Amino acid sequence: MTKYKASAFGHPIQGLIKYHGKIDEVLRLPSHNSISVNLSRFYTYTTVEISNTLDNNTMEIDDKPASRDAMERALRVFNAFRKLTNLPEDYKIKIISKNNFMSGIGLGSSSSGFAALTMAISSALKVDVDLTTLSKIARLGSGSASRSIVGGFSEWVVATTHEHSYSYRLAGDEVPLKMIVVEIPKLKDLPSTLAQIETEKSIFYKVRLGYIPTMLRKMRNAILSHDVEKIGELAEIDTLNLHAVIMTGPNRLILWRPQTVEVIRKVWKLRKRGVPAYFSIDTGATVYINTHEKFAEEILDEFNGIEGINTYISDVGLEAKPSSNHLF
Amino acid sequence: MTKYKASAFGHPIQGLIKYHGKIDEVLRLPSHNSISVNLSRFYTYTTVEISNTLDNNTMEIDDKPASRDAMERALRVFNAFRKLTNLPEDYKIKIISKNNFMSGIGLGSSSSGFAALTMAISSALKVDVDLTTLSKIARLGSGSASRSIVGGFSEWVVATTHEHSYSYRLAGDEVPLKMIVVEIPKLKDLPSTLAQIETEKSIFYKVRLGYIPTMLRKMRNAILSHDVEKIGELAEIDTLNLHAVIMTGPNRLILWRPQTVEVIRKVWKLRKRGVPAYFSIDTGATVYINTHEKFAEEILDEFNGIEGINTYISDVGLEAKPSSNHLF
Repeated sequence: MTKYKASAFGHPIQGLIKYHGKIDEVLRLPSHNSISVNLSRFYTYTTVEISNTLDNNTMEIDDKPASRDAMERALRVFNAFRKLTNLPEDYKIKIISKNNFMSGIGLGSSSSGFAALTMAISSALKVDVDLTTLSKIARLGSGSASRSIVGGFSEWVVATTHEHSYSYRLAGDEVPLKMIVVEIPKLKDLPSTLAQIETEKSIFYKVRLGYIPTMLRKMRNAILSHDVEKIGELAEIDTLNLHAVIMTGPNRLILWRPQTVEVIRKVWKLRKRGVPAYFSIDTGATVYINTHEKFAEEILDEFNGIEGINTYISDVGLEAKPSSNHLF
Repeated sequence: MTKYKASAFGHPIQGLIKYHGKIDEVLRLPSHNSISVNLSRFYTYTTVEISNTLDNNTMEIDDKPASRDAMERALRVFNAFRKLTNLPEDYKIKIISKNNFMSGIGLGSSSSGFAALTMAISSALKVDVDLTTLSKIARLGSGSASRSIVGGFSEWVVATTHEHSYSYRLAGDEVPLKMIVVEIPKLKDLPSTLAQIETEKSIFYKVRLGYIPTMLRKMRNAILSHDVEKIGELAEIDTLNLHAVIMTGPNRLILWRPQTVEVIRKVWKLRKRGVPAYFSIDTGATVYINTHEKFAEEILDEFNGIEGINTYISDVGLEAKPSSNHLF
């Protein structure tokens, strides 16, 4: 009997130049490069045990058995390590995962989840590879996990093969960005995969693809020059571009809820009085407000009055990391 | 001393295939054809007096002096008649106009206003011309007035000269369409002319122009075959297309308010339980819900609970008409 056990945590991401659209569903290869930033305030914490005494592969997320889809994606990640380490077939995996935030609200629990899982398995099997290799493997679980795992501000590069599509870090927490998260639950009947499909089917999608390279260049420059206002402005422009594309897909999806528009309008008001606040929305109704660290508290105060809404402040989060505290 | 006096009323329009973008600002020539429908429930009522005893041209809307912009546009209409009838220069005009609905909420008071004004002047001066000619003149005041004046479902055609850009009627109130109007005041700092400019500056505008001819063809067919559900569906698609284009303009305009999204979500729920309800939003936050006449009351009941919102049911409205009751 041999048993490998390890734990790790990873942070969810906010899309800055957002990624929708794949050229390969299995390898999760994207149609275009994308840039995101990790949020230190939130994390997925994962413990794995890999052993030849386990009867089955099992996975539990937030005290509930994982969905079939999540399980399949986790096994893709596990199998990549199996291949890398020549782990025999009789070894199975037990995965226990916990989020310190609500999942399914557009906060990217799959990015932090698969980043944590990849790091945990790597740590358990004592695989000696760099973050670039881990980024490729995390990608097999979730596209955005390939960015989450490297941390900070990271860019995920397009490639047509598994080997060449990974993320690398543009900058870390030296950029004075703070993010206020205004948590708005998304509607249960709108899976984020549907939004992905809608994006590709909009008549505007080709124009979006054409605009992406310039936006990426501008965003890279803003990050490298620590220009927090510019980062916020570009992410806001990309938010509207992406949501315009989603809502013109065949299902006419609107991911926003009334409170989403309320938050957007408050952000405008803040800007009118000189506060550098910029909204950003991923595939959900939750709003990130990007700002310079000096203004974070002032902005947070504005959002205390909205009914049924939780707010958080987050710093830039770093890469996924192993931990010696196990969940079981 | 000679005095001409007459009154007329006109109905506002709902854009079905919406018009944004001009190729000539003065002649108000559009970039593409558009189709709209008049609402019988609302009207502008206007009385004009044209006389050589008046010192100045004056115009009052809802008991307030008209803005300089509205006055200028009214004088363009008046001058067109002046030319047509060889009216001497010493004749001035007094205009009193009243709306039976709130203006500035995206309900198109300029369409009904300039339709009523054109009809009133025509009636006062006893000009014997057809609706096509009046449509061209109304267009000089407001593009959508060229459709409002002919009434029912009307299409406004593109042309590069004044003579050839007018509206004609596709169908009247024999189409069993009912419109539930959910009145949501738009933000005062967002003039609808700004939205027009934004549309043309979006990176998606060219794609919109490319999609318009097919949408017009589909909408004409739906109207001619009295297919109310199809009319509603197409108007909903065009609403999202237009608003996607507006929000990706340089100012990132969002014309919706929280309640707008609330109404959209309620419309979705209605459809889920089999009620043919389709939303449509012009340049404002107010929502029209298009439906078959059989379902109008059931839909109206759904919207009584929303705070601070007024609702109305409207039939298809017909052309602008003279009236013998004067406002002064």
